[in-house]
Amino acid sequence: MVVASIPKQTWVDALADVPGLRPVLWDLTGTPPDPDIEIVVPPYMGSSQRLTVLAELPGLRAVQLLTAGYEQAVEYLPAGVQLANGAGVHDTSTAELALTLTLAALRGVPEMVKGQLAGSWQRLAGRPSLADRRVLLVGYGAIGRAVARRLSTFEVSLTAVASRPRHGDDLVSRVHGIDDLPELLPEHDVVILIVPLTDSTRRLVDGRFLGALPEGALVVNVARGAVVDTDALQRECAAGRLLAALDVTDPEPLPDGHPLWSTPGVLISPHVGGASTAFEPRALALLRRELAGYAAGDGLSNVVLTGGE
Amino acid sequence: MVVASIPKQTWVDALADVPGLRPVLWDLTGTPPDPDIEIVVPPYMGSSQRLTVLAELPGLRAVQLLTAGYEQAVEYLPAGVQLANGAGVHDTSTAELALTLTLAALRGVPEMVKGQLAGSWQRLAGRPSLADRRVLLVGYGAIGRAVARRLSTFEVSLTAVASRPRHGDDLVSRVHGIDDLPELLPEHDVVILIVPLTDSTRRLVDGRFLGALPEGALVVNVARGAVVDTDALQRECAAGRLLAALDVTDPEPLPDGHPLWSTPGVLISPHVGGASTAFEPRALALLRRELAGYAAGDGLSNVVLTGGE
Repeated sequence: MVVASIPKQTWVDALADVPGLRPVLWDLTGTPPDPDIEIVVPPYMGSSQRLTVLAELPGLRAVQLLTAGYEQAVEYLPAGVQLANGAGVHDTSTAELALTLTLAALRGVPEMVKGQLAGSWQRLAGRPSLADRRVLLVGYGAIGRAVARRLSTFEVSLTAVASRPRHGDDLVSRVHGIDDLPELLPEHDVVILIVPLTDSTRRLVDGRFLGALPEGALVVNVARGAVVDTDALQRECAAGRLLAALDVTDPEPLPDGHPLWSTPGVLISPHVGGASTAFEPRALALLRRELAGYAAGDGLSNVVLTGGE
Repeated sequence: MVVASIPKQTWVDALADVPGLRPVLWDLTGTPPDPDIEIVVPPYMGSSQRLTVLAELPGLRAVQLLTAGYEQAVEYLPAGVQLANGAGVHDTSTAELALTLTLAALRGVPEMVKGQLAGSWQRLAGRPSLADRRVLLVGYGAIGRAVARRLSTFEVSLTAVASRPRHGDDLVSRVHGIDDLPELLPEHDVVILIVPLTDSTRRLVDGRFLGALPEGALVVNVARGAVVDTDALQRECAAGRLLAALDVTDPEPLPDGHPLWSTPGVLISPHVGGASTAFEPRALALLRRELAGYAAGDGLSNVVLTGGE
């Protein structure tokens, strides 16, 4: 039997029927509940410092995370132990929030809410529809494709950009490389950012990027705050030239009194891309898939690296 | 040449190349610009009283509206003159708003806006996703199908209800009849209303309907205000049992100080389902299709009735 530590009792119960697996409850605090733990699933939230305990598990073979990012775990990973990430678990929730923010910003939900707070029926005419907009999706990994799939029924024209150009799929005829951005930006009304944060995407959306967008364009960020130059975006929105809908900011949390809070045309959500009820069933489905595969001798499919290599 | 009066100069210009058609600018005020007007396209907005002038047009054969509703025009229609409606023109914009309101209410956009107005980063955890929700679409005409198409990529389970049961299509496996509602309501988390207002749908959503929904369910109304018993809905939301997102209300406009404005869990948009930039190109496309067909001798395809019959 493969012993796997699981951070939630409901998941322990739900995984009890996986052949060859013995799930045990453990949130990485206190003494390990079993000397033979072979796989650890750390708590989803919580300090990565708890991972120091990994060094005390003689039978440890793998760590299965529920986050797509894994950098926080690398320094605690013992030699020879595999690290698998939670890629895919947040795709649904994040792509859904990208559509939520895009539609809300275009159709004027912030204005509706403010009208409602004023307690009177206020005319709100001529808002842009998402239909007929030229949408530029910057980042075309799994979440980018989940966004593209949701956009596909909204009568938009869609252009996808990734780090390198490649062939298209069922959703886009081709994927542009990031070098095409200067010529693409002036031709798009909505830009949705869902790139990973790397050296080449940090402050990708700077004054020059924003200045190349047409008047009235909407910038939606569901990636990482540092992909955008906050001051440059704030200036463009304050001038009434652009709109923005941001699930992530730089700095984050956005400090009290930061001018972005009250800049016209800016909608801010407090980094809730992955934080919805969509997470739990998809996290459990990933654990079931990964742990069943491991117990069956097929290994983990989401391995990103091995400790000490 | 078929002479058609058109209420906007940009449309007159855009229709100038339709074979066999002579579009002339007229908003139904003042003297008719041409004695041979055969088709009238009334202004989209504006009092239907202007239609009294129809009786003064000896060559009139048809009236082409840009609204789906046509009741307002019937009394002014001379005998033998056909009346065609604008069915389809608002499908895109209205279906898009249905998704906008549903996503905004579920993912908490009103709370985001209020947090933003307070100028501080406020934790907003555990909101329901649209994914995994059981959605009941009440009304399955053209707009209902446009809503269903947009829901199809959001990982929901979808049930459609129309006045009578019928076979399904590419979006739903079957269409339930309205008599099935009592057994369907307890099994759904989101109800989207897009029925026409008729004797059988007026106050369809009453205290009993609402009481049959599970705790926390969301009611979205993009149909007509009078489909819902406003007081009953207000009570359920005030009690924290249901959520609502309403593009239409009864009474409408909702009066200043009405309790619905400040009821928790209620999002109100000021009847903007059809009012977006999606309207104009689709209205023009309808006119082109209808007028080209008429000029080619095929008649209008959207005829709903003929005066005096």
